Amino acid sequence: MNAIDLNADLGEGFGRWALQDDEALMASISSCSIACGFHAGDPGIMRRCVRLAKDRGVAIGAHPGLPDLAGFGRRTMSVTPAEVEDLVLYQVGALEAMARSEGAAVRHVKPHGALHAMAVADRAIADAVVRGVGASGQGLRLFAPPGSMLFRAAEAAGVRVIAEGFADREYDADGRLAPRSRSGAVIHDAPLVAQRAVRMAREGVVVTSGGETIPMAVATICTHGDTPGAPEILRLVREGLERAGIAVRAPGE
Amino acid sequence: MNAIDLNADLGEGFGRWALQDDEALMASISSCSIACGFHAGDPGIMRRCVRLAKDRGVAIGAHPGLPDLAGFGRRTMSVTPAEVEDLVLYQVGALEAMARSEGAAVRHVKPHGALHAMAVADRAIADAVVRGVGASGQGLRLFAPPGSMLFRAAEAAGVRVIAEGFADREYDADGRLAPRSRSGAVIHDAPLVAQRAVRMAREGVVVTSGGETIPMAVATICTHGDTPGAPEILRLVREGLERAGIAVRAPGE
Amino acid sequence: MNAIDLNADLGEGFGRWALQDDEALMASISSCSIACGFHAGDPGIMRRCVRLAKDRGVAIGAHPGLPDLAGFGRRTMSVTPAEVEDLVLYQVGALEAMARSEGAAVRHVKPHGALHAMAVADRAIADAVVRGVGASGQGLRLFAPPGSMLFRAAEAAGVRVIAEGFADREYDADGRLAPRSRSGAVIHDAPLVAQRAVRMAREGVVVTSGGETIPMAVATICTHGDTPGAPEILRLVREGLERAGIAVRAPGE
Amino acid sequence: MNAIDLNADLGEGFGRWALQDDEALMASISSCSIACGFHAGDPGIMRRCVRLAKDRGVAIGAHPGLPDLAGFGRRTMSVTPAEVEDLVLYQVGALEAMARSEGAAVRHVKPHGALHAMAVADRAIADAVVRGVGASGQGLRLFAPPGSMLFRAAEAAGVRVIAEGFADREYDADGRLAPRSRSGAVIHDAPLVAQRAVRMAREGVVVTSGGETIPMAVATICTHGDTPGAPEILRLVREGLERAGIAVRAPGE
Repeated sequence: MNAIDLNADLGEGFGRWALQDDEALMASISSCSIACGFHAGDPGIMRRCVRLAKDRGVAIGAHPGLPDLAGFGRRTMSVTPAEVEDLVLYQVGALEAMARSEGAAVRHVKPHGALHAMAVADRAIADAVVRGVGASGQGLRLFAPPGSMLFRAAEAAGVRVIAEGFADREYDADGRLAPRSRSGAVIHDAPLVAQRAVRMAREGVVVTSGGETIPMAVATICTHGDTPGAPEILRLVREGLERAGIAVRAPGE
Repeated sequence: MNAIDLNADLGEGFGRWALQDDEALMASISSCSIACGFHAGDPGIMRRCVRLAKDRGVAIGAHPGLPDLAGFGRRTMSVTPAEVEDLVLYQVGALEAMARSEGAAVRHVKPHGALHAMAVADRAIADAVVRGVGASGQGLRLFAPPGSMLFRAAEAAGVRVIAEGFADREYDADGRLAPRSRSGAVIHDAPLVAQRAVRMAREGVVVTSGGETIPMAVATICTHGDTPGAPEILRLVREGLERAGIAVRAPGE
Repeated sequence: MNAIDLNADLGEGFGRWALQDDEALMASISSCSIACGFHAGDPGIMRRCVRLAKDRGVAIGAHPGLPDLAGFGRRTMSVTPAEVEDLVLYQVGALEAMARSEGAAVRHVKPHGALHAMAVADRAIADAVVRGVGASGQGLRLFAPPGSMLFRAAEAAGVRVIAEGFADREYDADGRLAPRSRSGAVIHDAPLVAQRAVRMAREGVVVTSGGETIPMAVATICTHGDTPGAPEILRLVREGLERAGIAVRAPGE
Repeated sequence: MNAIDLNADLGEGFGRWALQDDEALMASISSCSIACGFHAGDPGIMRRCVRLAKDRGVAIGAHPGLPDLAGFGRRTMSVTPAEVEDLVLYQVGALEAMARSEGAAVRHVKPHGALHAMAVADRAIADAVVRGVGASGQGLRLFAPPGSMLFRAAEAAGVRVIAEGFADREYDADGRLAPRSRSGAVIHDAPLVAQRAVRMAREGVVVTSGGETIPMAVATICTHGDTPGAPEILRLVREGLERAGIAVRAPGE
């Protein structure tokens, strides 16, 4: 493998509030996942992110979340599969219109926070996300952890799926992300994050919280944009990948 | 003229709440304008309305509003033109995705409540609504009162515009709707509403609050769905139109 | 026992929306639990309910819920105990101010929907609710199912607790409410609801979904106000209780 | 005059979002106005601010706003006086409960953003704010610009009112704040802000945008906490006041 996608979640503000410097993050990534208004994001922020992405040649994705602004979409909610399908479709559709109006297009979808965690572990929710993505009829790709329910649901439904790894998150031995509530679950050491990204990209492996090396063959690597120093971390990750001879580019490019 | 469109606003609930019997209203209309989540409506309600409309052969429109659930989008807010353009586009895009997923399509857009009132009277807001509608690139029609800033903005921008009259609202001598705050501004007398609809459709006129007969040449007639007895009023309007030899059908059909 | 409290949840609308006829329900009850703005309710609706309750001599309670207007507070969310304590206190405080401004006072608190279900089953959430209630420093009573975690948490903290039974809900053999998702979980047969209320009040028992008679000694009985025909059901319940020689009055009166 | 109050607006975040470093701002002020959940603020943030204020001996005030999270309460909305009264009372009551639970008390109220602007200029809205404040029955003080409708409405209703000046905002010749939309309306030059505060406190005057010196006799001075460098500006203002022999303390202390 001599190319990989590098992605970050963007536009995670609301009205006057922001979490991150979207413009600085854009400098290092090849794909971005834009919040669509339910856990974060609003129409104005979405347009600004679409423009930035288009200007920088960064591929645009939708980042739909649960309707929980107060909890930033990170609180599990007992939503039904029908509710999930509809809220994914609604959010993706809104971003597609925004992208279209700027002469761009949405290329992928990646659920956010608790919706992601639920879709990874629960097949009924995973199927609902996939139906929401597939229903748009636009040939969207879905980002999903390899081996997850979400990945399998996409494959079963014939939706194109891109295996995603998280360079700045701890993994357990079973290949799942360590829960955010656990200390150390998010890795802030920039050189370590870069090193993990390179191993994922070149060798298709990751070292777990317990020290084991497990398979993690992925086609896109995420580094979170809402951690302190995120632009610098992303810059180091990109440099590390390129120094290792791995081109950074969006899926399908 | 031997055909006219008859429209109503639908899906104006939220979560467990509803204002109207969308299914009963569908029986008499040729077009519906579906709330898109900002002043009312949610993804589940939107899907249900799209399905009902498709089943009944009713043309689907988007009914974007101001972000004011508590005020049902009827409170004027000092939003900027850029905010208006973005919130229209966001809401229309969300409904378009929902329609597409049901094998249907959005055919028109009609702003709701205070957004409608602002776009009728303020050219900068009207232009912003028109940009939001036009940006979707889907050849959508805009419903607008004849002679309004919104009508003119659409014409100036080359967006197809359909002149709309309100059979159950009082008009003043200048052709504007009487404000809702005025007693008698909404007409609840079903035979009178039907009679006003027939005169609009056949003669292109309406009788004002002051008793004058003024021009009101329209191609679509709205009767509100959230008033008590709305389904019965709509039934009488349709019967009246058909008895007068006027077919009820959506624009372009 | 020759007296019991009869309560209903009121004010469960939002902006233009309503679920029930608060005024009609007030006619039969001795206590009401008013929605406080998170799952339903808004400042204007709260004031109207406080006035109605004061006029009718109905005791006022707060009915705090999860921050989930779209889900009517019925979707379980992974909120922390600290979040629960704060959101209970916030909502109770808002209603207390409203009551004070009308020359009335809040007398009890009863959590709504998923927050109720969580507090009944999870001691950490129950303790958090009790802390939120106790923190107001106003000697509020807490309504809780007998034997529940919520009941025990209140007792442990020295908060006055009133055992509550639900006359229109099925119970399982372990004394818990059948989940709403189960068919038949809500009883709509008015004479049966009245009969169940009388047996709870006079004999301290209820017949379960499986046909067993189990203890259900309660000091307040709830009948839901958001079911069709609720005012008539409540009227029959009150008539049944009074015919059985049981006075209907608020706790402490 | 040898003492004045120095205040800032705090807690203007929501969920994961923040605008300012509340803790750093607390170091220099004698009063704070805490956002109450409608334009910003949530129960957890409110509690944290109450604790910080209590620890630092800073007097606590409520900062109620319009229900417009997306617009940060800065967009004028056509709310009725009744709506204003109720939303002020609701928000103040919520903060009072939070303060009471921490062994503290709310001492003043100051409306936020567009609600402030409306109450300054429109007597009906001013009266509604005053009714909301007075209804709490807790002897709260109201902060209001001298000469404003809000100031007069408080005086007329017998609500204690504290004249407030804004050291970091331009004034026009008529004593009104220059609108935020005007370039230069917010002053970021820290020494200049400090100098303006000292003149207000010592001489009871301010220099207008046009260069005139007009009366501005105030008992509390606000400097905004959401501008860049706000903690440093506040520190300089306090230093300037103290160097000029003016003690900084909350009203009534």
